[in-house]
Amino acid sequence: MIKLAKTIYDLHPLIKKRFSPHGFKDEPIEKEQLLKLLEAASWAPSSYNEQPWRFIIGIKGDTGSYDKIFSCLNEHNQHWAGSAPVLLISVGKKMLTRNNAPNRFHAFDSGQAVAMMSIQAAHEDIYIHQMGGFDAIKAQKIFHIPEEYEVLAAMAVGKIKHDPSQMDEIPKDEIFYRNRKEIESFTFENDWEIPFK
Amino acid sequence: MIKLAKTIYDLHPLIKKRFSPHGFKDEPIEKEQLLKLLEAASWAPSSYNEQPWRFIIGIKGDTGSYDKIFSCLNEHNQHWAGSAPVLLISVGKKMLTRNNAPNRFHAFDSGQAVAMMSIQAAHEDIYIHQMGGFDAIKAQKIFHIPEEYEVLAAMAVGKIKHDPSQMDEIPKDEIFYRNRKEIESFTFENDWEIPFK
Repeated sequence: MIKLAKTIYDLHPLIKKRFSPHGFKDEPIEKEQLLKLLEAASWAPSSYNEQPWRFIIGIKGDTGSYDKIFSCLNEHNQHWAGSAPVLLISVGKKMLTRNNAPNRFHAFDSGQAVAMMSIQAAHEDIYIHQMGGFDAIKAQKIFHIPEEYEVLAAMAVGKIKHDPSQMDEIPKDEIFYRNRKEIESFTFENDWEIPFK
Repeated sequence: MIKLAKTIYDLHPLIKKRFSPHGFKDEPIEKEQLLKLLEAASWAPSSYNEQPWRFIIGIKGDTGSYDKIFSCLNEHNQHWAGSAPVLLISVGKKMLTRNNAPNRFHAFDSGQAVAMMSIQAAHEDIYIHQMGGFDAIKAQKIFHIPEEYEVLAAMAVGKIKHDPSQMDEIPKDEIFYRNRKEIESFTFENDWEIPFK
């Protein structure tokens, strides 16, 4: 029987627990919980403490924001993401506020913010599935996102039906995403592709 | 008296604890602990599970790798980062392995990997200070990093002299990095810059 996140080392339980579900429980996320996740995002580090991340929020049934985000998802993601009570779009500010120079870390730092959000979410038994499969140009247009910002990932956020730590097997459609490269294959010492051992 | 990471919501202790110190304890990081941090990085999500992140590792006194990384840091960072027992460089693969198309999430996902590493590190009482202030072109050259990879952030990794949860005041040179924007200023609903409330 295969447990979720079969790690080599004894990693923190929230890192092992986090995964990207393909379906959510029909239960809303309380506004305060969502604000907590967004605050967690903000505690990521960033170059010059620029905090280049922005988020567009869509709460199901609340305003049209959810439907607008949903309309940008590709067909494959629309198939399952509509079960999520919350949809988000993450956006990165491409220029530094202090001097309008390019911020080469805007996407890197925005990714860190989303990761912090994912950890806080896992702590609250909330899961996030990030999606690259959506029409970023359409999102930029319908939300009037200025061109000095880059639309990054879409996200589906919600609770899931089963606690993964209680699951004995990985759901079939998640197996691909539960495999990781060996540490030696992505860590180098002294020179490129000299494995760190 | 000011505590570190004064958050609005009751965020996870590891998110509140994580910060970027400007100095480290003179104590090595065990190799197994470092491998654990690197494995934690690998459990970040990524587009198509591409895992675009790569890391170059430098352990003080071990091989020349540390000195090579150190030589790329700018003067300001060299001033304090040499106290760290470990220096790293994070690198992102710009093309998708499966079809060689551009991976527009390589930096975003590499940022997530570093954030996961930071959370695991905080759990192990290890701190990471990421740096943009270094010569990425020099790093690309001296480590023979192919051009289909982008050098992202440098990082100093180590233990610190005091447990921040025991500190009553933020060290003066950290205050700038302990401030965060209000949630309303970076979260929007329905349209750009319409605050999410």
